[in-house]
Amino acid sequence: MSSEIVDLLVCATCRSAMPANPLATPDPDHRPGAQLVAALQDAAPEGLRVIAVDCLSNCSRGCTIALRKPGAWTYVYGNLTPEQHLPAILEGVQKYRAAENGLVPWRERPEHFRKNCIARIPPLEAPNV
Amino acid sequence: MSSEIVDLLVCATCRSAMPANPLATPDPDHRPGAQLVAALQDAAPEGLRVIAVDCLSNCSRGCTIALRKPGAWTYVYGNLTPEQHLPAILEGVQKYRAAENGLVPWRERPEHFRKNCIARIPPLEAPNV
Repeated sequence: MSSEIVDLLVCATCRSAMPANPLATPDPDHRPGAQLVAALQDAAPEGLRVIAVDCLSNCSRGCTIALRKPGAWTYVYGNLTPEQHLPAILEGVQKYRAAENGLVPWRERPEHFRKNCIARIPPLEAPNV
Repeated sequence: MSSEIVDLLVCATCRSAMPANPLATPDPDHRPGAQLVAALQDAAPEGLRVIAVDCLSNCSRGCTIALRKPGAWTYVYGNLTPEQHLPAILEGVQKYRAAENGLVPWRERPEHFRKNCIARIPPLEAPNV
């Protein structure tokens, strides 16, 4: 596995698009994004920088993360919850970290990543692809 | 207005999520993304680099563009068509270019940008925001 640093950007302001009980009165203090930040900071392996971000602007499909590393594509994933998706995120991070240019073959990605990719951005170094 | 270079990344493979006639048989040669690339290359003002990208992974809400410049937030916008949204894209590019860190106040963005922001990514230089 590559030893390079990977940034795991986590939207700290996400209220989550899919509340556990959509009929309940929203709790203004309920911030699944902040919970996801804390859970990932606790679980992060060496070489993974967990960075809390003030809104990744994917509010209708949160919680949201983005993966980036130098010279690689940046990937944004959504519809995550701190309760369900920690293993998938950590597996996805490991594969992204090991992949040249951040390009993990579609079939090798965690199932949640396959179904919930929001967008990707090419590296600065090779924009013409 | 700032004179710095702005990258306008355009998904060249987008088939568009909203075809003109959803009941028609899809035409495999119909690539609104490629049309949008060509139209923007023709219309681009000086200092704007239009870069065709092979899939920005926002296939269900294409056509798709991303705006980026050094030290600024990257923004992804979707649900664009080459027929309708060239003026909005060029207006949005101009405001993004002039804005410090790429942060255009929400009310000043073109209406289509306000309603169709797919995601945003913080600059490498200031990830903790």
